[in-house]
Amino acid sequence: MSKPVILVTNDDGIISPGIRALVEVMTKFGDVTVVAPDSPQSAMGHAITIHEPLRFQKVNVFGDKIPSYQCSGTPVDCVKIAIDKILHRKPDLCVSGINHGSNASINVIYSGTMSAAMEAAIDGIPAIGFSLMDFSFEADFSASKFFIEKIVRNMLKAGLPKDALLNVNFPKLPLKQIKGMKICRQAVAKWEEEFDERKDPSGKSYYWLTGKFINNDQGEDTDVWALENGYVSIVPVQFDLTHHHAISYINKNWDLHEDNAKKKPLKGKQVLKK
Amino acid sequence: MSKPVILVTNDDGIISPGIRALVEVMTKFGDVTVVAPDSPQSAMGHAITIHEPLRFQKVNVFGDKIPSYQCSGTPVDCVKIAIDKILHRKPDLCVSGINHGSNASINVIYSGTMSAAMEAAIDGIPAIGFSLMDFSFEADFSASKFFIEKIVRNMLKAGLPKDALLNVNFPKLPLKQIKGMKICRQAVAKWEEEFDERKDPSGKSYYWLTGKFINNDQGEDTDVWALENGYVSIVPVQFDLTHHHAISYINKNWDLHEDNAKKKPLKGKQVLKK
Repeated sequence: MSKPVILVTNDDGIISPGIRALVEVMTKFGDVTVVAPDSPQSAMGHAITIHEPLRFQKVNVFGDKIPSYQCSGTPVDCVKIAIDKILHRKPDLCVSGINHGSNASINVIYSGTMSAAMEAAIDGIPAIGFSLMDFSFEADFSASKFFIEKIVRNMLKAGLPKDALLNVNFPKLPLKQIKGMKICRQAVAKWEEEFDERKDPSGKSYYWLTGKFINNDQGEDTDVWALENGYVSIVPVQFDLTHHHAISYINKNWDLHEDNAKKKPLKGKQVLKK
Repeated sequence: MSKPVILVTNDDGIISPGIRALVEVMTKFGDVTVVAPDSPQSAMGHAITIHEPLRFQKVNVFGDKIPSYQCSGTPVDCVKIAIDKILHRKPDLCVSGINHGSNASINVIYSGTMSAAMEAAIDGIPAIGFSLMDFSFEADFSASKFFIEKIVRNMLKAGLPKDALLNVNFPKLPLKQIKGMKICRQAVAKWEEEFDERKDPSGKSYYWLTGKFINNDQGEDTDVWALENGYVSIVPVQFDLTHHHAISYINKNWDLHEDNAKKKPLKGKQVLKK
């Protein structure tokens, strides 16, 4: 049986230590190709590049045996161009990371790491994003690598339901202090923005985006709880954003008829114009 | 009773005709402030600007009575800076658009228009993104404006369930040919990338991202169906991306134990390290 084709990408850029750690683990499982941004692309969300063209270039970052390419675009661009112009096929697995910094809870929405994995999943490719709660360039990825091996083995063997991918976060702890892995839901939390105002030499204001993470979700089944309590968090993620409960709410409580005088009963989900 | 404070933004930029049409409708409902990108920011997804600072500037684009600001950042940045540095409060409603081009189905993921609305919703603000299936600068927004008025009236009166926002798309049709509005789910569809390769004067390749929209979802309850059949589509959207069904799938089918020889029964969702 031929080895699985594995695409590795990230959002911190191809020379970040996190992607090197991920590549090291993934070579145990299959034929790895790396296609990653040529510069940091954190917080790019699901951005794609449509107003300017993309470039990519073969580089030797991980040795002669691992084909590696740096791309001028976003993490999502990297996945798209890898499939169409580099691999010329869909990989059997796409992994993204290891991100320097948490992508738990609402961070999944802003994260380039997770958006790259999601792009692969939208295309039907098994996909996982990995993140370590440590922004440092010297972050210790050894515990992360230990768990990634277990997670990937399960992914290749048992897979996931259709239209699911994984958001995996590692606490900043040595291996022996990590209690295990927990399958979680995304904690309901948000960032409260606090822009830091400064003046340029001509006296004009400019602003750095900073923020405070606000978690009001006390559930013990959340990723934030797991990470705060010494577990690796594994959240299955979907890209069907439909709020199904709200469909029935609107059909019941909204009046979208054209002419209230001629109002007729709603026909299922359909609201007719007179 | 004081009038609602309404924040209007978009991703096509503050001088696009779509945002002008939206501002015109919204002045009927409350005190409008516009904070929008100073340049086109389509397909920016939920990107935020963290590697460089932001600037914003008061402009007079919509007349003296409507405070308007152009911002150097992404659509999500615009919402964040509007709350923290311009309005100094949360608005009562945030509307985004009218986007030039569809944001139905999977486009919700890539869309800057929808990400701006989602950012507001994450912050607990009632939010709607509006899009017209017409990329033209000369697009006719009159039918869109007719329906926006009805939708906003309902939004202000009956609201939505917690953690829901709306993705509204208009077909490119004159008002009299639009059959009405339909509350829909997001169609399961995707873009298949087809990069267009070109050579620069020095002979090096560069690539334009293009793609083909692939919809294999035949459901008549989807946004794509509604739009193809002459309806306005209204999809309630959520930002909890947890794939709940996959949680039970993983707990049942994956083996995340450290040591198979010492395997113990799973304790709920918790997978213990030995």
